[in-house]
Amino acid sequence: MGWQDIAADKRSRIAASIPAEWNIKPIPDGQATFDYPATSGVLSSQELDLTGYSATELVAKLAKGEVKSVDVTLAFCKRAAVAQQLTNCVHEFFPELALKQAKELDEYLAKEGKTVGPLHGLPISLKDQLRVKGLETSMGYVSWLGKHDEEDSVLTALLRKAGAVFYVKTSVPQTLMVCETVNNIIGRTTNPRSKQWSCGGSSGGEGAMVGLRGGIIGVGTDIGGSIRIPSAFNFLYGIRPSHGRMPYGKMANSMEGQETVHSVVGPIAHSAVDLRLFLTSVLQEKPWEYDSKVIPLPWDSSKEDAAKAKLKSGLTVGFFNFDGNVLPHPPVLRGVELVVDSLKKNGHKVLPWAPYKHDFAVDLINKIYVADGCADVYKDINASGEPAIPNIKNLLNPDLPEANMVEAWNANLQKWNFQVDYLTKIREFEAQNGELDCIIAPISPTAAIRHNQFKYYGYASAINLLDFTSVVVPVTFADKNVDKKNTEFKPVSEMDETVQAEYDPEAYHGAPVAVQVIGRRLSEEKTLAIAEEVGRLLGNAITP
Amino acid sequence: MGWQDIAADKRSRIAASIPAEWNIKPIPDGQATFDYPATSGVLSSQELDLTGYSATELVAKLAKGEVKSVDVTLAFCKRAAVAQQLTNCVHEFFPELALKQAKELDEYLAKEGKTVGPLHGLPISLKDQLRVKGLETSMGYVSWLGKHDEEDSVLTALLRKAGAVFYVKTSVPQTLMVCETVNNIIGRTTNPRSKQWSCGGSSGGEGAMVGLRGGIIGVGTDIGGSIRIPSAFNFLYGIRPSHGRMPYGKMANSMEGQETVHSVVGPIAHSAVDLRLFLTSVLQEKPWEYDSKVIPLPWDSSKEDAAKAKLKSGLTVGFFNFDGNVLPHPPVLRGVELVVDSLKKNGHKVLPWAPYKHDFAVDLINKIYVADGCADVYKDINASGEPAIPNIKNLLNPDLPEANMVEAWNANLQKWNFQVDYLTKIREFEAQNGELDCIIAPISPTAAIRHNQFKYYGYASAINLLDFTSVVVPVTFADKNVDKKNTEFKPVSEMDETVQAEYDPEAYHGAPVAVQVIGRRLSEEKTLAIAEEVGRLLGNAITP
Repeated sequence: MGWQDIAADKRSRIAASIPAEWNIKPIPDGQATFDYPATSGVLSSQELDLTGYSATELVAKLAKGEVKSVDVTLAFCKRAAVAQQLTNCVHEFFPELALKQAKELDEYLAKEGKTVGPLHGLPISLKDQLRVKGLETSMGYVSWLGKHDEEDSVLTALLRKAGAVFYVKTSVPQTLMVCETVNNIIGRTTNPRSKQWSCGGSSGGEGAMVGLRGGIIGVGTDIGGSIRIPSAFNFLYGIRPSHGRMPYGKMANSMEGQETVHSVVGPIAHSAVDLRLFLTSVLQEKPWEYDSKVIPLPWDSSKEDAAKAKLKSGLTVGFFNFDGNVLPHPPVLRGVELVVDSLKKNGHKVLPWAPYKHDFAVDLINKIYVADGCADVYKDINASGEPAIPNIKNLLNPDLPEANMVEAWNANLQKWNFQVDYLTKIREFEAQNGELDCIIAPISPTAAIRHNQFKYYGYASAINLLDFTSVVVPVTFADKNVDKKNTEFKPVSEMDETVQAEYDPEAYHGAPVAVQVIGRRLSEEKTLAIAEEVGRLLGNAITP
Repeated sequence: MGWQDIAADKRSRIAASIPAEWNIKPIPDGQATFDYPATSGVLSSQELDLTGYSATELVAKLAKGEVKSVDVTLAFCKRAAVAQQLTNCVHEFFPELALKQAKELDEYLAKEGKTVGPLHGLPISLKDQLRVKGLETSMGYVSWLGKHDEEDSVLTALLRKAGAVFYVKTSVPQTLMVCETVNNIIGRTTNPRSKQWSCGGSSGGEGAMVGLRGGIIGVGTDIGGSIRIPSAFNFLYGIRPSHGRMPYGKMANSMEGQETVHSVVGPIAHSAVDLRLFLTSVLQEKPWEYDSKVIPLPWDSSKEDAAKAKLKSGLTVGFFNFDGNVLPHPPVLRGVELVVDSLKKNGHKVLPWAPYKHDFAVDLINKIYVADGCADVYKDINASGEPAIPNIKNLLNPDLPEANMVEAWNANLQKWNFQVDYLTKIREFEAQNGELDCIIAPISPTAAIRHNQFKYYGYASAINLLDFTSVVVPVTFADKNVDKKNTEFKPVSEMDETVQAEYDPEAYHGAPVAVQVIGRRLSEEKTLAIAEEVGRLLGNAITP
């Protein structure tokens, strides 16, 4: 079979995994699919209700026996099936396995009178990088299809222990190394709010799936924005924990063994509260006893308490809306301003943060991504004969030479020195202004972007290089009546010019806009507490 | 100037840094110099007393004003000068700067009525890898001489903030990558107990200096035993903290940027209590605000309390005395046995631990050390024209090819997989036996070794690959009347045969023997508490 046949076979297997009665016909041909699930007729009104709760509410109801996992799971399976048909966001769909797992959990609760763990009975959606025993992990490569995983990833196994139910693995771009979601197997995943816009990437399937509430918490990964961009483009919350907080063991990955900048795994959800539920549930399983890279650092609620006290007494917040490389589009500049104004109005001290050498940081991380001359990703692409997707060359140019060890070690050293210098800048700021509680910044220079237009990763990737904790908070939507073209714009670089030229008030009208709340390394407790408050101040703390 | 002249100049500068009245003449020509400082006449009896306290006692006295830092510093400067003349363990000696610093601290205390920090006025000895503003860091390379550091290393700066006084930087082997201490600048550093034995390495100058109480706490580094071997060879305690616990920022190093296995920094001292003083004092300064690699993990005394409770209720201890590669000499086998018996006798459960794939681990770490084809170290050696020291080729063969990126990333991945598998073995053990509190093992296959005979690093380096916390505890001394040659010995490898052939009961009579107490990653609180108890059971908890 040629690669086209293998890909077509996978597509027909995905289609066949959806029971006939969950098919929606005809597929709506409008651009926005966001409101469709409610009126699709696939879910009963009770099922629609079940998919409308927060995960935190659901686990409480499940634990009390007020709702059954089979009912919750069935509801999410149906809604996921609808989401797939609307946005093309699925790589693996296995409702039968899920319902079997849910049934066992219901029986356990009935018999034992207690839950197996804090996520008892809750469906969790997985990016197609996490291995589930018995299923395929393609990661968007045709050449990976047809192999079935022999064991769970560490995180899958621990989520399972905590009581999570698995039912779907969502789409990713070929290689994972781009912030849109397109591959030669399933094609392109679109944004629920408009088929013209990207769902983001690389955890783009999660963005679309959770965005449409086909999932309540989705698991993504991030080495240059891949959790945060899909969160931002779908008006969701997402956290990029620092490396070492969540277990990445036994997951599939591109460029395995590249450890100058680590990819990290974390949740995408509708609220900061649900992100916290995910983190605390995983940490309760002591992931450091299973994955050597996880730091033995249980969730520390005293750090949350300290953060909450600070929220009352007043935060000291830094912000920037221009990293020196690429000026964001008007809706994003307005988004940052909204957050800054809102914080100031509520008694917090908000001061400009000078982004220190982000140009250097972005150059360095881009070099790190291609240190092997892109050999790893092109090996997996070429193994099937499939072509590279269009977006890839933004980051991964196959004509680049491989680094040698001196260069590789030098990159490690440059990264460390940059991080140390950044800490110095923070201390200098603090000597003037007191403790810096977080930094507010754009996560992308654009609102949810039109296809094939994602060019600049720097707002996200500089934070990966620093390994800072970052939480994306949804802010607003682009508005053609307010967000006019920037007539004063003077580009500082070719990239700056290219990105700004893409802005079109009409085309972006209604596209989600977000910021990231950036905290120090391993500050998940504090940064999440602040992000929750930012969302609350914006009126986005709970989304429908 | 040729390299010989540069080296000779440095030697004469070291000699000139010792005030004439601290010179001992004639230098004793016996093999053992261990007891000499007490009768050298350089120190008054009061000064001898001051150098006899533990660091913990001294900082308490200093804080109360019962002793002055200038007196303590002067005593240690004198004793360090004697140690240098006996063992050749110094690279930089600067008593004037030290006494000036001590005077300022005394004045501060007198004026402010409080200390600057937990190490107020305490002299701390530094391995010649830590930078002190204004001084040279040669690290044993002739080509590095003549440059003066423009700033302190992060650790130096934080120790200074905590009140430490600096007076000496101690000798290391050329490259740091061997476990004996010899370079072309100062020659060889010897063991205070016999000139025939090595002081260990690469923190060998610290081993000799602290061994002779020319230092009370010395700072070493360890990427394959370099803290633990000198501790063992000098009947001292030493801790290899896990990576990320102590700040390594802005220190000199070989192979900077090699991050598959990290060198770590930690103290060498006469007691576990003094090791703890060092760790708690540094952590109090929040090193994570200065060095991005340090995990924000303050000292957690609740973990110590839990460990102490476990000491009462009974530990579960694993042990091994053969890693499958190289059988230790009889004194070391007896050392492990002594510890095992002692633990058992005191109600602890001690079970065999099967060292999982240590052969693989040792091979892998040896490959990691030479990933750049040894380019980095030979560049610095060749820059002056000096020859390589004899021991180097044990680990660093200049004829090796450089790894490529695929191999380098593969090494990262192999290390991670090995660590994860090791955690699985621990969980399997625990499923049978309950929580594994620590593992007792040899740190070297030999007691303090004869010169040029250190060949096998595996007992130490496998633990570096795992990044486990490890504390060396002094146990006993080789005894020709007990530790007979092993007549049943059947070598499993050439290395095994070579190492065992070196054993000679007569030559090793009296040489220090130690074990390492190994705990999980980042278990400094617990592992140190257990190590302290092991020392106590052996009667080695406080040494003169």
